[in-house]
Order: sequence, then C-alpha cells, then structure tokens
Amino acid sequence: MSTYKAPLADMRFVLFDVLGAEAQFQRLGYTDATRDVLDAVLEEGARFNETVLAPLNAIGDQIGCSHDKATGAVTTPPGFKQAYTQFVEGGWSGLTAEIKFGGQGLPHAAGVPLKEMIDAANLAWGNFPLLSHGATEALLHHGEEWQQEVFLKPLVEGRWTGTMCLTEPHCGTDLGLLKTKAEPQADGSYSISGTKIFITAGEHDLTDNIIHLVLARLPDAPAGSKGISLFIVPKIKVARDGSIGEANAVRCGSLEHKMGIHGSATCVMNFDGAQGYLIGQPHKGLMAMFTMMNTARLAVGLQGLGLSDRALQNALRYSRDRLQMRALSGAKFPELPADPIIVHPDVRRMLLTCKALVEGGRVMGYDAALQVDIAHASGDEKERADADALIGFMTPIVKACLTEWGVECTYHALQCFGGHGYIAEHGMEQLARDARITTLYEGTTGIQALDLLGRKVMQLQGAGLRVMLEKIERFCADNEGNAAVAEFIGPLRAKAGEWQQLTMAVGKRAAANPDEVGAAAYDYLMYSGYVSLAYWWARSVAASEASSQSARFKTGKRETARFYFARLLPRSQAHAITIGASVETLTGLDAEAFDV
Amino acid sequence: MSTYKAPLADMRFVLFDVLGAEAQFQRLGYTDATRDVLDAVLEEGARFNETVLAPLNAIGDQIGCSHDKATGAVTTPPGFKQAYTQFVEGGWSGLTAEIKFGGQGLPHAAGVPLKEMIDAANLAWGNFPLLSHGATEALLHHGEEWQQEVFLKPLVEGRWTGTMCLTEPHCGTDLGLLKTKAEPQADGSYSISGTKIFITAGEHDLTDNIIHLVLARLPDAPAGSKGISLFIVPKIKVARDGSIGEANAVRCGSLEHKMGIHGSATCVMNFDGAQGYLIGQPHKGLMAMFTMMNTARLAVGLQGLGLSDRALQNALRYSRDRLQMRALSGAKFPELPADPIIVHPDVRRMLLTCKALVEGGRVMGYDAALQVDIAHASGDEKERADADALIGFMTPIVKACLTEWGVECTYHALQCFGGHGYIAEHGMEQLARDARITTLYEGTTGIQALDLLGRKVMQLQGAGLRVMLEKIERFCADNEGNAAVAEFIGPLRAKAGEWQQLTMAVGKRAAANPDEVGAAAYDYLMYSGYVSLAYWWARSVAASEASSQSARFKTGKRETARFYFARLLPRSQAHAITIGASVETLTGLDAEAFDV
Repeated sequence: MSTYKAPLADMRFVLFDVLGAEAQFQRLGYTDATRDVLDAVLEEGARFNETVLAPLNAIGDQIGCSHDKATGAVTTPPGFKQAYTQFVEGGWSGLTAEIKFGGQGLPHAAGVPLKEMIDAANLAWGNFPLLSHGATEALLHHGEEWQQEVFLKPLVEGRWTGTMCLTEPHCGTDLGLLKTKAEPQADGSYSISGTKIFITAGEHDLTDNIIHLVLARLPDAPAGSKGISLFIVPKIKVARDGSIGEANAVRCGSLEHKMGIHGSATCVMNFDGAQGYLIGQPHKGLMAMFTMMNTARLAVGLQGLGLSDRALQNALRYSRDRLQMRALSGAKFPELPADPIIVHPDVRRMLLTCKALVEGGRVMGYDAALQVDIAHASGDEKERADADALIGFMTPIVKACLTEWGVECTYHALQCFGGHGYIAEHGMEQLARDARITTLYEGTTGIQALDLLGRKVMQLQGAGLRVMLEKIERFCADNEGNAAVAEFIGPLRAKAGEWQQLTMAVGKRAAANPDEVGAAAYDYLMYSGYVSLAYWWARSVAASEASSQSARFKTGKRETARFYFARLLPRSQAHAITIGASVETLTGLDAEAFDV
Repeated sequence: MSTYKAPLADMRFVLFDVLGAEAQFQRLGYTDATRDVLDAVLEEGARFNETVLAPLNAIGDQIGCSHDKATGAVTTPPGFKQAYTQFVEGGWSGLTAEIKFGGQGLPHAAGVPLKEMIDAANLAWGNFPLLSHGATEALLHHGEEWQQEVFLKPLVEGRWTGTMCLTEPHCGTDLGLLKTKAEPQADGSYSISGTKIFITAGEHDLTDNIIHLVLARLPDAPAGSKGISLFIVPKIKVARDGSIGEANAVRCGSLEHKMGIHGSATCVMNFDGAQGYLIGQPHKGLMAMFTMMNTARLAVGLQGLGLSDRALQNALRYSRDRLQMRALSGAKFPELPADPIIVHPDVRRMLLTCKALVEGGRVMGYDAALQVDIAHASGDEKERADADALIGFMTPIVKACLTEWGVECTYHALQCFGGHGYIAEHGMEQLARDARITTLYEGTTGIQALDLLGRKVMQLQGAGLRVMLEKIERFCADNEGNAAVAEFIGPLRAKAGEWQQLTMAVGKRAAANPDEVGAAAYDYLMYSGYVSLAYWWARSVAASEASSQSARFKTGKRETARFYFARLLPRSQAHAITIGASVETLTGLDAEAFDV
C-alpha cells in the first residue's frame, strides 16, 4: 500500500519563503491569515489527511461506489461517509469561503495546501467536496440574493455538495450541441429534462442534499453555445424560503466503470421534469459556467501535483530500501548484499524528475492561487488587472502541465518499483490510474492548449504573458549580482526572450492561417510550462538561500534546480522546434488516408 | 469495446517492399517461405486473431485468471482454453521452429507479423504461448540430446508450454542474489527448492504439462551471478525416456493482482524439492538464460507495437465519428452539427504521433527479426557477424522504444476519446493498463539503456552501432539523386553524424567515470530510437515510392515521414542536450537529502 505524509516543510517554504504569503495576506486585508493560523491549518490539515483520508485510498479503489438500480441511490466506499462528517465538523469545507456564508474567510492561497493534501491522500474522496466550490463560485457571482441565501451556506458548510452538469452523451467540449431542455413554469421555476453524463458526485450518501448546476436550453434559445442557460436543480426540492420539499425528478441512472478514481461517483444523471431555478441571465449560462470552470481547472492541476508527490514519496522510500546491483562506480554499501537502487544514476533521474516537477509545480500552483487573492482583494487597480491577466494565462498551464506531469511522475515512480510497481498491493498502479483522469476532465490538455494560445495569447493579445515576462525580468534584474542564482539567470533570461519571440512568430502565422493555432498549441503550452518552471526554480533557489532553512534544505533546492535546468528544461528545445514546424505536417494528410 | 483488424497492407509493405523479405528468405535457404506461403500465413493469422483472440480481450480483462488455494490450480478466463486449442490445431505454435522438432520451418521474420497480431488482439492470452519460445531457445542451444528429444517437440507443437523462473522476492534485475537451491540426487537429477515470483504462465489450464526453466544454485556454487545454474523442472514429472510420471513438487502459491493483463497468470511458484534436470553447464545458467531473454526482449517490443496499433485503429475510428466543434479554419462539414474531431490539428498531432511510431516501429521490429534470420542462416561469415552485432545493439532499442512508445501511443489514443477514454466500455483504458507492463518486464527501460550503452556500446566497442551507421550511410549514398527522399537525406545524415559524435563523447567521459554510463544511458537509448526511426521512415518513403502501392498509400507514407521529421525527431535534440549534461546533476544530491 502506498503511504502519504504531507510535505509541510516544502509547503511552508513555498508559501512563506518563496511567495511571502504572510505579508501578502496581511497587505490584502486577510488579517486573520497570520503565520500562526496558517501553521495551525497546515498541521491540522496534515493530521486529518494522513490519518483519516490516506488510509481510505486503497479501499476506495478496491470497493468503489455502488449503485442501486431500483432506487438510484449511490453508496460510497466504507469509511468515506465518516471521513466526510469529520471533514465538515473540522470546518474544512468552508476554509476559504466568506464568513458571512459560514466560511472561515481565509484567502484562497491558504486553502491550496489543504487541497493538495486531499488530492494526495485520497483523490477519489476529494472529488465529493471539490465540486461544491464551483457551485459556490457560480452562486456568489451570478446567484440572486435569495439563491445565495438559501443555497450558499449549506454548500459552504459542507452540509450539501454541488455538481456541474455540463456533459451529455454527444457533447463534452462542444457544449453548443447540448440538448437538455428547460421549460418555464407558472411559479417562475423551470422544468428541466435531459440526460447528463460524467457527473462527478452526481449522487452519493454523504449529505442530505445535492445541488446540481445544470446547463440547459430555454424554449426560445438561439442555437449553439449562445443559447445555453444555467439552472440550479437540487436533488431534494428547496423552496425560495429555504424550506425543504420532496425529492426532485432527478435520478442517477448508472455509474461509469472507470480506469481509476473508483471511489469517486461518476454518474449518468437523468432529469425528468426536475424543478430548477435560473441562475444568472437567460442564454448566458456558458459564461457563468466558466466561473466554475476556471476554479475547477486550477483545482485539477493540484490533483496532478498531489498524486505526483505521493508517488514520489513512495518511490523514494522504495529506492532507499530495495537492494539491487552495485553502483557502476563501485559498491557504495559493501556491507549489504547489494546497494540500494537510489545509488543508480538512472533511478535518480526518475526520482529527480519527479522532485523537480513536484516542488517546482508546487510553487506554480500556489502562486496561481495567490494571484486569485490579489485579483480579488488588492487595492491597486493595475495590480488587480495584472493578476487577473496572469491567472487567465497561467490557468491552462497549471491545469495541463501539472496533470501531464502527474501522469509522468506516477509513471516514473511506478517504474522505480520495477515489476512490483505493476502489482496492486504496492499502490503505485492506483496512483497511475487515478492520475490518468486529470488530463481529461475539466478540459483535456488539448483544450487547455487552445485556451492558452487561441484565447489568452491571440484574442487577449498576450496580456498575461506580458505580466509573466515582466516578473521574470524583474527577478533577473533584482538578482543581477546574486551569486546564489548566477548560474540560472542567463539561461532563464534566454528562455524568456525565446518565449516572447516564439509567441510573436506563432501569432504572425496564426493571423494568416487559423489552423496554425491548433497546430502549435500543445507544444506552445508545454514550452510555456517548462519555461515557467525554470523561473520558479530560480526563484526557489534565491528564496532558499535567503531563508533560514537548513544547509541540507538549501542544497536540496540548488541541486534539484541544477538538475531541472540541465535535464528537463532541454525539453523546451524540442517543443520550440516543433512550434516552428509547418502546419502542413499536420494538415497534409486527408482524413481518409490515415489508414494503411 | 475496442476492435482490431490486422494491418495486413502495412505488414506486407514492411516485409516485402521495405525489407525485401521474400528475396532475403530465398537467399538464406528458407525455400518454403515464398510470397504465396507468407501471404497465406498473414491472411490466416489475421482471421484467427480478429475472430478468435480479439473478442476475448475484454472478457480476459474483466474476469481474469483465478486460483484455487486448495489445489494450486489456475483457471484461465472463459474462451482462453478453446482459443489455445485452435491455436495449436492451426499449427501456429511452431510456425518458425525447426521441422525436425515439429515446427513449420519458416524464418523468424515470417512469424513476427503473427506475433504482432496476437499482442494486439489479446496481449494477456499471448503470454501463454510466448514463454514457450524462450524455453525452446534454451533447449535448442544448451539442452542435451535427450532433453531436446523429450521436451522440444511438445513445446514446439504447443502441447506443453514453458516458463522462465528467474525472479525471487528480493531479486529481479540482480539475479546474483537469488537463493533457490538445487541439490544433486543419486539418479543424476536435482531437487529444486525455493520461491519464484512474477512467473508468467506459471500455472494454467491450457495444457497437460508446463516446463519450467528455473535458475537455482548448486551446493558448491560461487556467490553472485557466477554461481547460478539452469534447470528444467516439469509440472508433471517426465523421465529421460519421455515417460510421464506423477505431479512434481511445484505449485502455484498465488496469483498477483495487477494493473492490467488480467488474463495472463502471473504466479508465485513454490518449488519444494521438485525434480529438475541441469541444462547446460553448472554455474553457467545466467548465460543460458540470456539466450531466452534476448528473444523475449524482442518479443516484448512487439507487444508495445501491437498495443499501439490497436489503440491507434480505435482512436482513428472515434476521431472520424465523434462530432465536436468546428475546424478553426472554418467548418469542414457544414451539413453536420459539428465537424468530426479529426479535423482539429491537435487531434491529428496525437493520431499522427501514433501512426509515425507504429509504422516506423513496425519496420524497426521486423528488421530486427530479419537480422536474427541472417545471423542464423547467412552463408557469409561477415554478414552473420554484422547481423549478430546489429541484433545485440538493436535489441534494447527495440524492446525499450517500442514499449515506451506503446505507453505513449495508448496514452494519445485514449486522450483522443476525451473522458470516454477513461471509461472501461470503450476498451481504451485496458490498452493503456496492459501496455504499462511492457516497460517493466524482461528488463525495465533503465536496464535496456544500461545494456545498450554499457554493454553494446562500451564493452563491445559499438560494433552494432557501426553496422547501423554503415547501413544509414549506404542508404543515403544510394539515394543521392532520389527526389522522392531528397528532403530526408540531409537531416538523416546530420543525425547519423551526431549519433557517432555523441557516442564517442559519452564513451570518453565514461572511461573516466563509470557513473557517466548510468547518467547518459536513458537519453542515449531514446536518442538512438528516434534516429533509428528517422532512418526507417526515410527508407519507408523510398520503398513506397519505388513500389506498386497506390498513390494514396504513397502519400500516407510521405506525409507521415514529414510529420515524423518535423515533429517527433526534434525530441532527439532534447535527448542530445541531456546526454551532454554533467553527471553531477544526478549524483550531486545525497540520498538522504532527497526529501524536503
């Protein structure tokens, strides 16, 4: 079985030493978010995740959720409900929600380490409370006062959970095709009918009610994505005065059998004239849905991070314990029958790849959350705008890269175990199977790539990239004479310059042929991820050297940064070449001529 | 459910147009291996695999093998036994084995397409007959006459199957640590005692007997890998005169629960004073085992290829059927509600990546098999020696690259399905789970990399690389004026030159510090794979243009080669940079300092 220990030392380092979160929170008016409070959250969060959620991870995989065809009820794996109760009682649900809605009022970035811990401890379980955040966001931004009044508090407190009902059998990415109908009723509510698939936490036994946010079409809706509206559809009816009614006409038709996250209920949801309330403007549902989506995308990025970290922790333990062969440069532990496999450079390559992607990715993911707080609470309008542009730019990078790296890290970690990695009892294969969903849901990597290059770079004229490049240049200028990071500044500056040039070049080509965006998008996305990570690694070394961390800690950061620049950053070279490749190498072949 | 159709057109193209196999076979004395016979083998093999094995793939995954604790018996999934009977009755088992031992006497390369089909149709099932080949090889090369007499024919005919019993709980790669004991008996046999794990097809219900080839230590054995001997241990005792006796003291203790290949029985085998016969010289068992291992490594490479092809076929079908979004350059099918996703460049990127790796990998894998025939049957001593060196050099490349690409292709193909790829019913996730074993068993990718750089390049002074580079240069020289491949010759020559230089540079550094081998091995391996594939793609285009294939076929090859050179070969650039990276970026960190 795989084990998990929350990486508190590195979480603290990232929050406090690299990002200066304590000062930032105070500056932004989150006066409760003191170092003491944040430390307590980390410690208590670690305890809960290590002792309650992590031990349920394997059983959730083995037993999974079950569905009662007769009633439509879904039973979660043993222990999930008790863990959820503890989660709610511990006040974890509303950690970063507003106090007036029952939350703790902490900044978003203070909740991110907890989120990472949950994802590492038990990804499948984490999907139940996760979706409530999206529903909360949608209600906060688009809900009428009575809707906020009635639905927000139970969601924030975790007494109810939420869902996002977008996908239908014939449409996932292309929501313009959706068919679910909403008929206006005399009482101002709507009658919702249709089938939604892939609904995470669509039905379960953890809470008394489930609040579905459902995309559907009004009778007069224009065709396509401009005719979609968003509705609140509770599992148990809730009146405008908050009183609870009878069961609504919504039912889980079946559960999907999946490669992984067996403990997460992935439901087919049938709405058969269910009572719903319009949220936001008619036909503007897609925009409201994107409010939920962006939060969810950053959250899924953290899932990749959490799984990577857990995989690394276990691979590291195994690589120190497993004795096999002697080091090529001579026995390192002659008293043992063989050397532990961590002496072998190729095992170290796999471990260091995970370490560099996890620790660098942690800074990337946490900073994105901090930008959300800045965009929300800064008193400076330009700072808010910059943070907003940066979030928009970084969201697809965080989502796609942290999840692609999650697939990669769980691959390497499993590989460190050799054949034992393929056996269920070690738990490594579960991590690999669970990780595999993260590059698919909330928009595949390809969709993130199009969002980045097509929308955030082309349509928005690269506002977010400009902010990022300014930050990099400021860091380089600020550290001009800093011997601790001198070796990284040159390569980083060169990459930043290349990034800008590649962006301009691809923009030029895309203006002439829109297919160029699709052709370059994936490589541009991954390129951006690797260059961003170079920045975060250089900053991590600078922060570590300037901190009161131990000499061992500082060496760890410096050596991992060296590894990153020497052995992972070169991947950006391959992506850069490919970004420049002719679009015809993708479009030249007729669809019919793909077979041989 | 995923489907499978044997890619006969490309198999024929590779065998006959690219490799000129018919002429080669005739030249090597395989007079029966005419085009007509080979065509019949392909057609009949396709029929068997498409109609018998492929439909059992999903059920094998869902039901798996089961183990009876009381008797130690293993039951294979429904249909496996009947399929095996058909396989034996069809004469498929001994297709490439010598006629005098009951085989069909066809060349090795003629059996490779069948092997690929089996792996694609039903990888788990294919593991039952697979291991017999290794046992056959070991008996052919190292068995005494009576051993060949008694054991070979039933193995070749498929009436019995074989196993390779190497791994023990504490040793896999490092067989020098193994503990299984062999005590000499008065009758000249040995009493074998010990526990072996991860024994593929160690127990099953397909045949009356199972012939285990077991590594064990004699009482006077030197420590380490120089004290290991190889023994034949039948499940049911077989006397020297071939008479069948009682059950031997060998028993399956349990089956492993694995990520994939559920239909393949991965057994813990307990030998409790089982009767065995020494095969080959005492203490020379490891060498005999390597005879089996090399065959098995090429075979596992083909597993990666087969799975990649099946994954691609299904992704292609789905990408043509699934309607989602419009092409960025404007609707391609305005009459449909949306365009099929194959219009999107990023979907094409994934499909073409698979296509380039599958079709290029097919040439690479089939040529390795052809080299085995040349090394075996050529009348020219230098040609035999060259082929032998080339096999040694290419075996780790074929094994590691075709399986790493198998993991990659099943990833891309699943990704083309979006969320649907994660759902069991589409069958894509099974392909990804099944593929995951191939980079682990028969030596992990890291072990292949060490074999390539440490042994085949450093110890054997790159004899195999020299042969490969000569072939590339000869091809380039021969095609100097060939307009059809002019665009590829320059880049290929440049890569070949770079390959030679990188090899010399890494050799120099490794002479000074043996850890350099371990540090560069993985990147050197993958680099070698990508450059080899560039050669095979250039040759494929040349062969296609010179052939009587259709214009559509020729376009397919040319456009895929262009894609490969523009969008996959650049990966070699990242590997080249990394090969040159300092070894200290891997060895600089103390094992204790990996945690944060």
